[in-house]
Amino acid sequence: MTDRREQTDLERGIDQEYADLGATTQNAMEIAETSMDIVRQFVPDETLADRVRQKSVHSMGDIEFQHLLEFTGSDELGDDEDAPVRAGARAVLDECDIVTDITMAKAGITGRGHNCEVRKAIGNGTELAKETGMTRTAASVLELDKRGTYEGAIAVVGNAPTAAFALADCIENGTRPAAIVATPVGFVKAEESRQRIREISEEYDVPAITNVGRRGGSGLAAALTNELIHVASDARTGDLEFELNRTAGERASPEDA
Amino acid sequence: MTDRREQTDLERGIDQEYADLGATTQNAMEIAETSMDIVRQFVPDETLADRVRQKSVHSMGDIEFQHLLEFTGSDELGDDEDAPVRAGARAVLDECDIVTDITMAKAGITGRGHNCEVRKAIGNGTELAKETGMTRTAASVLELDKRGTYEGAIAVVGNAPTAAFALADCIENGTRPAAIVATPVGFVKAEESRQRIREISEEYDVPAITNVGRRGGSGLAAALTNELIHVASDARTGDLEFELNRTAGERASPEDA
Repeated sequence: MTDRREQTDLERGIDQEYADLGATTQNAMEIAETSMDIVRQFVPDETLADRVRQKSVHSMGDIEFQHLLEFTGSDELGDDEDAPVRAGARAVLDECDIVTDITMAKAGITGRGHNCEVRKAIGNGTELAKETGMTRTAASVLELDKRGTYEGAIAVVGNAPTAAFALADCIENGTRPAAIVATPVGFVKAEESRQRIREISEEYDVPAITNVGRRGGSGLAAALTNELIHVASDARTGDLEFELNRTAGERASPEDA
Repeated sequence: MTDRREQTDLERGIDQEYADLGATTQNAMEIAETSMDIVRQFVPDETLADRVRQKSVHSMGDIEFQHLLEFTGSDELGDDEDAPVRAGARAVLDECDIVTDITMAKAGITGRGHNCEVRKAIGNGTELAKETGMTRTAASVLELDKRGTYEGAIAVVGNAPTAAFALADCIENGTRPAAIVATPVGFVKAEESRQRIREISEEYDVPAITNVGRRGGSGLAAALTNELIHVASDARTGDLEFELNRTAGERASPEDA
């Protein structure tokens, strides 16, 4: 088992260093590194949350997007801003499922650096959607939740506000994802759906990464999820030794730790 | 043949009206309609290019994004801003291939309202990427171009600046896509790659829709492509009768036409 995992990790390049897990050729790695160097000129690099902020800026092509992210909920170390990043990275290390709302978000999640199964909700709950008129994604979330899919999983909502609302309902009814990434985009209920996720996140201690405002989307959701994978990958290789066991405050001021 | 197509169109709901081809349930259609109503309060609704602007605002969740789109190149009617929309919609009606750079852009393109084959470049040219160190997407574009894939196709680049540069090289070497949608995102070469597409578009009369600035991405590219499909769908059902045969100026001032 251990041998097999080690071999798989090696094959997947889990032990290599990357500026971006999706960049595998020389040219792509250079672009990714230059790009992250630019991003780091404008985004702090202190906490694990900062890494997610950097990734948001990188994927949105917008320096100011760093200020639109919210980190809510807590893990056993506390309710600091790193909590959802730690929880998400730990879930990756534990090889929990990653469940997206739509195909596009799933397509954006890297196959490298992890052994999680990446699944999508859409395509399930077709009958429920037909019967009730609710959106296909909302129905698919409810259907997967009935099967226990979201319990302990990383729940990713990139596109559909109604999927985020459905996920919040599932949590209210007892489901506990390991972490949530929710960034639905748009003018109708997108912001409200993320606000609802934040409230549920605080109330039921489910760590969540969301954004404020109307922007967002599946590309952002995939990028943030990829950063959880990247943090997990760095923790595994020792680049982030102990980091998953320290709060944001302890990381920023190690002398106080 | 005709019977079969008519049945397929009917099955796919090509004859139905949609605010968004991706919205199929009652709830989703209401959200899509409300959303587009909001967008139309802020974006003009005169030209075909305006429809693409509306779609960009809708998909980016940002009213101001309408000002970041560029429409270049010409068709047989002229070089007005509608030219790339007309050309793209005609290519959809002609059932040309739609070829994206990466899986994520492909995943965002609707399966409804058209009979085009939607393909992706990534996954081709692996050997070339290994040999040269160029990005996998750039190599995949060059590889597909060798096979003639981009000739007469709708070329969509949502993610990789290097894919856009490669596509521009192919056009310089004689390939003529029917239309281009190029919206790579990021801080390294993304804006430059779109600038290059615009120059190539003007020089070789290949109609192109691009954006300026650092933002963009696969979600945007898919959304703009979906709007080309939607315009084609409306033209097919008569909602846009003659519109594909008029310039933006003639549409805006029909009395002058």
